[in-house]
Amino acid sequence: MLVNQRKLRIEWGQCDPAGIVFYPQYLIIFDTSTGWLFERTGLSPSAMRKKYQIVGLPVVEVGARFVMPCRFDDEVEVESEVSEWGRSSFTVIHRLKRDGQLALDGFEKRVWAGPHPDRSGAIQARPLPAEIIASLSDPTGATTIAIHDSNKPKSEK
Amino acid sequence: MLVNQRKLRIEWGQCDPAGIVFYPQYLIIFDTSTGWLFERTGLSPSAMRKKYQIVGLPVVEVGARFVMPCRFDDEVEVESEVSEWGRSSFTVIHRLKRDGQLALDGFEKRVWAGPHPDRSGAIQARPLPAEIIASLSDPTGATTIAIHDSNKPKSEK
Amino acid sequence: MLVNQRKLRIEWGQCDPAGIVFYPQYLIIFDTSTGWLFERTGLSPSAMRKKYQIVGLPVVEVGARFVMPCRFDDEVEVESEVSEWGRSSFTVIHRLKRDGQLALDGFEKRVWAGPHPDRSGAIQARPLPAEIIASLSDPTGATTIAIHDSNKPKSEK
Amino acid sequence: MLVNQRKLRIEWGQCDPAGIVFYPQYLIIFDTSTGWLFERTGLSPSAMRKKYQIVGLPVVEVGARFVMPCRFDDEVEVESEVSEWGRSSFTVIHRLKRDGQLALDGFEKRVWAGPHPDRSGAIQARPLPAEIIASLSDPTGATTIAIHDSNKPKSEK
Repeated sequence: MLVNQRKLRIEWGQCDPAGIVFYPQYLIIFDTSTGWLFERTGLSPSAMRKKYQIVGLPVVEVGARFVMPCRFDDEVEVESEVSEWGRSSFTVIHRLKRDGQLALDGFEKRVWAGPHPDRSGAIQARPLPAEIIASLSDPTGATTIAIHDSNKPKSEK
Repeated sequence: MLVNQRKLRIEWGQCDPAGIVFYPQYLIIFDTSTGWLFERTGLSPSAMRKKYQIVGLPVVEVGARFVMPCRFDDEVEVESEVSEWGRSSFTVIHRLKRDGQLALDGFEKRVWAGPHPDRSGAIQARPLPAEIIASLSDPTGATTIAIHDSNKPKSEK
Repeated sequence: MLVNQRKLRIEWGQCDPAGIVFYPQYLIIFDTSTGWLFERTGLSPSAMRKKYQIVGLPVVEVGARFVMPCRFDDEVEVESEVSEWGRSSFTVIHRLKRDGQLALDGFEKRVWAGPHPDRSGAIQARPLPAEIIASLSDPTGATTIAIHDSNKPKSEK
Repeated sequence: MLVNQRKLRIEWGQCDPAGIVFYPQYLIIFDTSTGWLFERTGLSPSAMRKKYQIVGLPVVEVGARFVMPCRFDDEVEVESEVSEWGRSSFTVIHRLKRDGQLALDGFEKRVWAGPHPDRSGAIQARPLPAEIIASLSDPTGATTIAIHDSNKPKSEK
């Protein structure tokens, strides 16, 4: 699988009175890390939503294990990759490391979801496009998806 | 003016490594306090949105002064009231007290906003309904707005 | 076990552009719900920290399953209870319901932790006090812990 | 003055059901932007705290004006600089731009604060070091502060 890496600095407002990261903040990091992983397809989030007519990637299950605390000012690295593809769902695993050592790991199981055809405001799982699976399964990251219309992602918003 | 009062307990996740509330958390408290103040009209947020066809009350200006820090486990009281009515904007002031002493105060200037008639996704300021002004200007809180259709707020969502 | 129940209103700032709760916000709700469960011992968080010389209840594992989305203005109920006691760790399970139906459930595995005797800033797992286990295992909630010194919890901060 | 510039991508979890950034999130951006501005002195936050024996830079006043909303996936730029130096306080102004246009601006008035000599847990304003003022007043950013002891910032934590 393609592994996306991000470097982050732990911020003051992410930490609690014990001086360590308040744990729900790590789930916010998971959420944005999944976003950056999916950009490795070559599509920005808004371009991906437009191209495939999806409303998002809602989370149906999440889990994390905390091995070592992180503190304000720590530089950390997040590695994210898809660990499993279902028909319309997939699981992303995240590893957060400090000085090369695992601080925590976790997963998000998400659904590829479009608007429900009948019920306004509701969503419906959709089959994952083969090219999305191919792109994020390629460890080299070379398989990116072309946008077939003439607009650039930024102008689509 | 009608003053709405809320009692809150400062939560662990609202505090920073110095052991005091991370200041943007107070603005989140302002936001929810304005929400509860407007419920004193007798309308839930969703009922108010439906009745007047507004999209929300976007903030155009905010300010706060921090006098005394609050810590995890502190019981605090928030007092909120409209300090000024414009044609389509208004200002809410908030005072947060601990043990009866002022910890911070601040204001939010907001706009009564509906969807823009021409530009999809954009908003447009609308004149404030006289009954909203009357209701939140009545210090006794007795002036509540009736919902004229037969649906209860909860069933409107 | 003792089940603690809280009623909450979903706030505007907890929701995302899809109009539903941004999932890490549920973990913040878990964290505060564990806090309120432990207050059923009769001890405030600061009184508990002082009495037992602990620094907190750090989370070592967390998980959640999302069944049904919640939206701004929804009234929800959270039920929390300890599902398992270890020697120095314990698991709290949380169920969040809307209109009596399960919206999500999850767990937090936490450690009863004091300051490390040798390493400044580090923590060490401690044996859970029998009276804490007894108090939160009593389904009636009648078993509360007396504070033996003359100070009230609020004056201890 | 020295102007620090950061480029950010607006994240999903920073936005509300109206699809725009929930305004307290901008104050979190202010807080981290002040942190990065002060790193232009050449000192990491932990190195600065150690060198000058301060506990932090608590905010005593904040204000912001919102001109134009930002949305998920927007690329924005934040410019931050000190606008005024007091004896022990200072004001940082922030401008957040999207596509070169001002989306919002604001300020934070902060205090250079050390531990109170007599009251445990309390803080006391301290005179701002001349070299900090000099470093952040130099528009070229060339005036950085040397760390005089042999430890590197990262090893001080």
